[in-house]
Amino acid sequence: MTDLRYDVIGIGNAIVDIIGRCDEAFLAEVGVAKGSMRLVDADEIKKIYSSMGPAIETSGGSAANTIAGVASFGGRAAFIGTVADDEFGRIFSHDIRSVGVAFNVPSVSNGTPTSRSLILVTPDGERTMNTYLGISTNLIEAQLDLEMIQASSILYLEGYLFDQPQAKAAFRAALQTAKTAGRKTALTLSDGFCVDRHRDEFLALIRAGVDILFANESEIKSLYQTESFDFAAEKARSDTKLAVLTRSAKGSEIHFEGETIRIGTFPVSEVVDTTGAGDLYAAGFLFGYANGLHLETAGRLASLAASEIISHTGARPAVSLQELARQHGLIS
Amino acid sequence: MTDLRYDVIGIGNAIVDIIGRCDEAFLAEVGVAKGSMRLVDADEIKKIYSSMGPAIETSGGSAANTIAGVASFGGRAAFIGTVADDEFGRIFSHDIRSVGVAFNVPSVSNGTPTSRSLILVTPDGERTMNTYLGISTNLIEAQLDLEMIQASSILYLEGYLFDQPQAKAAFRAALQTAKTAGRKTALTLSDGFCVDRHRDEFLALIRAGVDILFANESEIKSLYQTESFDFAAEKARSDTKLAVLTRSAKGSEIHFEGETIRIGTFPVSEVVDTTGAGDLYAAGFLFGYANGLHLETAGRLASLAASEIISHTGARPAVSLQELARQHGLIS
Repeated sequence: MTDLRYDVIGIGNAIVDIIGRCDEAFLAEVGVAKGSMRLVDADEIKKIYSSMGPAIETSGGSAANTIAGVASFGGRAAFIGTVADDEFGRIFSHDIRSVGVAFNVPSVSNGTPTSRSLILVTPDGERTMNTYLGISTNLIEAQLDLEMIQASSILYLEGYLFDQPQAKAAFRAALQTAKTAGRKTALTLSDGFCVDRHRDEFLALIRAGVDILFANESEIKSLYQTESFDFAAEKARSDTKLAVLTRSAKGSEIHFEGETIRIGTFPVSEVVDTTGAGDLYAAGFLFGYANGLHLETAGRLASLAASEIISHTGARPAVSLQELARQHGLIS
Repeated sequence: MTDLRYDVIGIGNAIVDIIGRCDEAFLAEVGVAKGSMRLVDADEIKKIYSSMGPAIETSGGSAANTIAGVASFGGRAAFIGTVADDEFGRIFSHDIRSVGVAFNVPSVSNGTPTSRSLILVTPDGERTMNTYLGISTNLIEAQLDLEMIQASSILYLEGYLFDQPQAKAAFRAALQTAKTAGRKTALTLSDGFCVDRHRDEFLALIRAGVDILFANESEIKSLYQTESFDFAAEKARSDTKLAVLTRSAKGSEIHFEGETIRIGTFPVSEVVDTTGAGDLYAAGFLFGYANGLHLETAGRLASLAASEIISHTGARPAVSLQELARQHGLIS
């Protein structure tokens, strides 16, 4: 049996975020639903970029943010995703490796650029994303390092991958590999509209046995096509062993074997940018879970990481989450 | 005579900043003097990047930051600098145009990349820069839009341009054009080590009649090869009509026709990143000066802009400086 070398391995889109501020009117003008992630093509992203204000660039990607967060907690982490041999590919690769994440997928040189997301942040701190997938659509089964997956306690997958037909086979192969090796599997639903696009496949996957399901309120309600969070949570409880549901300022709930653990939020002086809130929540939870901490402690680590990430621009931790967690007495 | 269309036109290196955090030991390892700007070649910047931590990318460049600041105050601004036809060139062009700056220099496609600076920020917020000039060394006299210079109340030049022999001719041609058109000329000394490299040429230029000289304490002391700020200020007073000297936390001094106006600093809750402090100080002063405000008001606008920029990462304003100045009752 393969030795465990990683706490968590994530598979997702390797994205560089281009983050700018805008008002609500601009979102309407662009025609994107506030708080959502929308896929755009090369022409559309160019058009939005040319009309938006100044921006900063920073590594992103949902599962990639989570994995960088696990590493920031001191966890052993690995990432699988595809970058092009270009400037953004070098930025993404540098940023994730420099925090200690194992990232070995060779970059691709076929003229398609590295994925990017134009993230529009409104004055309330809410982020709205326009993502051009670019080379991320290149994620194929052949790129998976199965040995790395076998060597990871938890395999973490982002639901966004379902927007790429080619990536689905890789997604399923990764799940199968982890299960066969006796590892835990985790899935985040990523986005309410994404759930809407792939509801049946998500449900089938979850019922076939994803060990840990992450979803926010709009995603879990979309999954079960209900307006009631409690009803959706009830359904999630019956479909999964461990459902971790986040509700923004209302905190989060961990549903495990009939038990519900409620986790509060950590105070934040100003919500600057919500980009990565769910990703970093997952980071804290997965780090705690992989290290055998109590579910409530894992939930508090999750909540702490989310509070750090929304207090500044960008979805990668600005401070060491390990030190932050120590300061809060959550880890020693 | 050409109509005045711009308050300020700046000429400088068009740079994308790559900003990361590090400790003092890392600076020693890299071998760079804290607080300075050092020129590095393509191999060296690659080496430093591969050993530094995660970073964010944001448009920079000293004069470019100043010009973006003038625009943020509501001033009419233009910029001349060279970018390559690459990802960083598109980022730089987007960011400066999106704040309303006229920037029309065509990008260059000769394989040399857009300039970049690896900026290392220590825990005290001080920034240390490792700049790879790339395509910026391409700034030549032929690229100057002389009509734009004639149409600007003030021509603002960064001293960093003196590190490029080819750019010096453009620098002098721009000065001559502005003077002939009866415009004001302004120069920032940029960096103590830069002054050391080009002291005699800077002195000759200043004595030949630069209208406004900007320098910080280390730069003005380097210019006059003295350890005494007061002695250096005395010399600057005799060499220039208007010398604007900044002293970080000690505030700044405006020396004009024998008079000295002292400007205090605005309170900052935390000095996050000093990158751009001098650049934004110059922005506030130039905006005020070009709009005929009292020198003390110009100095306070300068100080306000500097306080905004050091309170967050990156050298471009995170808020509208016009609104900020209104909130402080400095402009109506």
